[in-house]
Amino acid sequence: MITVKWTEANGWETPELKPYGPFQLEPTASCLHYATEAFEGMKAYRGVDGKLRLFRPDLNAKRMNLSSVRIALPSIQPEELEKLIKEFISIDGPKWLKDPNTFIYLRPAIIGSGAQLGVQRPREATLFIIAVLFPPMDKPTGMRLLASTEDMGVRAWHGGHGASKVGANYGPTLQAQGAAGARGFDQVLWLLGPEGRVTEAGASNFFVVWKNKTTGRTQLVTAPLDDRIILDGVTRRSVLELARKHLSHEATEPRAGGEDLEKIEVVEENFTITDLIQAYDEGRLLEAFACGTAFFLAPINGIQYKDKDMEVPMPVTAKDGSKAGKYGGVIKTWLKEIMYGVVDHPWGVVINERGPQ
Amino acid sequence: MITVKWTEANGWETPELKPYGPFQLEPTASCLHYATEAFEGMKAYRGVDGKLRLFRPDLNAKRMNLSSVRIALPSIQPEELEKLIKEFISIDGPKWLKDPNTFIYLRPAIIGSGAQLGVQRPREATLFIIAVLFPPMDKPTGMRLLASTEDMGVRAWHGGHGASKVGANYGPTLQAQGAAGARGFDQVLWLLGPEGRVTEAGASNFFVVWKNKTTGRTQLVTAPLDDRIILDGVTRRSVLELARKHLSHEATEPRAGGEDLEKIEVVEENFTITDLIQAYDEGRLLEAFACGTAFFLAPINGIQYKDKDMEVPMPVTAKDGSKAGKYGGVIKTWLKEIMYGVVDHPWGVVINERGPQ
Repeated sequence: MITVKWTEANGWETPELKPYGPFQLEPTASCLHYATEAFEGMKAYRGVDGKLRLFRPDLNAKRMNLSSVRIALPSIQPEELEKLIKEFISIDGPKWLKDPNTFIYLRPAIIGSGAQLGVQRPREATLFIIAVLFPPMDKPTGMRLLASTEDMGVRAWHGGHGASKVGANYGPTLQAQGAAGARGFDQVLWLLGPEGRVTEAGASNFFVVWKNKTTGRTQLVTAPLDDRIILDGVTRRSVLELARKHLSHEATEPRAGGEDLEKIEVVEENFTITDLIQAYDEGRLLEAFACGTAFFLAPINGIQYKDKDMEVPMPVTAKDGSKAGKYGGVIKTWLKEIMYGVVDHPWGVVINERGPQ
Repeated sequence: MITVKWTEANGWETPELKPYGPFQLEPTASCLHYATEAFEGMKAYRGVDGKLRLFRPDLNAKRMNLSSVRIALPSIQPEELEKLIKEFISIDGPKWLKDPNTFIYLRPAIIGSGAQLGVQRPREATLFIIAVLFPPMDKPTGMRLLASTEDMGVRAWHGGHGASKVGANYGPTLQAQGAAGARGFDQVLWLLGPEGRVTEAGASNFFVVWKNKTTGRTQLVTAPLDDRIILDGVTRRSVLELARKHLSHEATEPRAGGEDLEKIEVVEENFTITDLIQAYDEGRLLEAFACGTAFFLAPINGIQYKDKDMEVPMPVTAKDGSKAGKYGGVIKTWLKEIMYGVVDHPWGVVINERGPQ
């Protein structure tokens, strides 16, 4: 692991690379009481060409700075953080990732680590980077979502911190998520406000493909960033960029796998659970998926809202038997090709490995 | 300190009493990433009669259970927690509190302490109780508040967790609080929604005394609990109960200090910053105070909202030179009398001391 200490008095200290092990934290540490904590999630991939890659690490580093500042922790130079992450994985990657088509999850995080019980800006912080191995979390059979009702609360709100990757966005959702899990759902589809605006699925961004109710045109739709309710996901952003470039009416570069698909409109705008139900009832709902680093791009096979149970189509079956929507499936393939070096792409950042130590 | 471990598999383990010292926490501990943490704030008081007291510890214990469950941590038997707190202070109190009219702050807290990077209910938790000495925080000259504007965010919202004492309510407010502090304000007066509903002052409940704009009757007003936006403060509740019993039109027991005050209406209802400004402009704003365990009952001498600067009256000067409003001042005196054993009262719970160890 890498740790870097920061103090109000002296700023950032020299990063330390050390074996993974527990922190010693005073019981009065700010992060244990006031949720002064922020993090990032990213993966390092062992490509089919044997190379180690990060996927758009510059975006994680920039967002980590925004999240840290939002939660009253110090600002972080994104370029410096990106260097640290690369340094870390150049050493740790070779140890854990031997085989092509494998990945390891990286968790940069920052916590208010000083003993400080007063409710105020932390005067000491610790940034750390750890790596964790876990299996792919996207279910080949698709995920089933439970749309939130009033008693489950809301994930984020106007003037809150839904756009930041801070701990305070996660803990408060776990009770509802646990209850949904006990009822057999994979994730909660978080709605907001009396109109039931669709925001995020679990801790992932949410996309739907439908035929627009007015124009009848096929659209890929997700909630917008401008009101800062949802997370500016790296996968979300990449999905939108690939769809615009290769699948939209304005697509400048057709790409293998997308040639036979009907052109779509790529739209970031608010929609409600009522819109979703109406699309379903009128046979306009074509597919849905959640995306984020942990779950990657996870097709959704069903959504329940109160008594309404919607089966979401997953018309494509891949060679490995996994199901997907048409658009989600091809975008996922394109993302994989970049992550695992099937194609050369500026988003797939090759890491110079130091070899096992 | 006292610590008690809980695991999903085995439930609560036996409490351990041990010297204060750091926790060892894995870098993947849930509380460091997902804000799975909740706490309480309470004080133990050395009375004028030499006895050690807690103030309504049953209320803290009950609220701690609600907060813990809200943040997906285990439920806590309030009676058991109250016993533990009493046990702890019966041993630690004699060490730190020698002189009458002194207090020590107690912090029971619970954290998701297990190594668990998945975004899910913690499977391990640690409850702990520590004691911290700090000087009184209520300023004798009164506090000056900066009412929040849109850029400062909101503290809590419908369907959120504003009514729970969870870390996730605090960290996100520190940036705005730091900025307000840098501009010379003591706390932020948190407004909510486009109408600017007045909710809390810093991490305290907020009260105003004004003449009702329609009836002209004098009212003690604070935000209500029913929409779960604000914290159900122990001091807030006690202020309301004392005011109803001794100062309202329905007062059943007149009490020394309150006889000469005009009778008031005690009201829990929403009001907006516009209502507050209107009352000020029309000379109907009589006083304001914040209350909570840390700040006790802190008179407010000014509130600024955007370009509007309001001076809040503090007509009473106490023997020690401190200023207060008429109603806030007398309620504070009554609370002190209970806390420090000047009067016998069921809220002042005497602790059987074990003597220094």
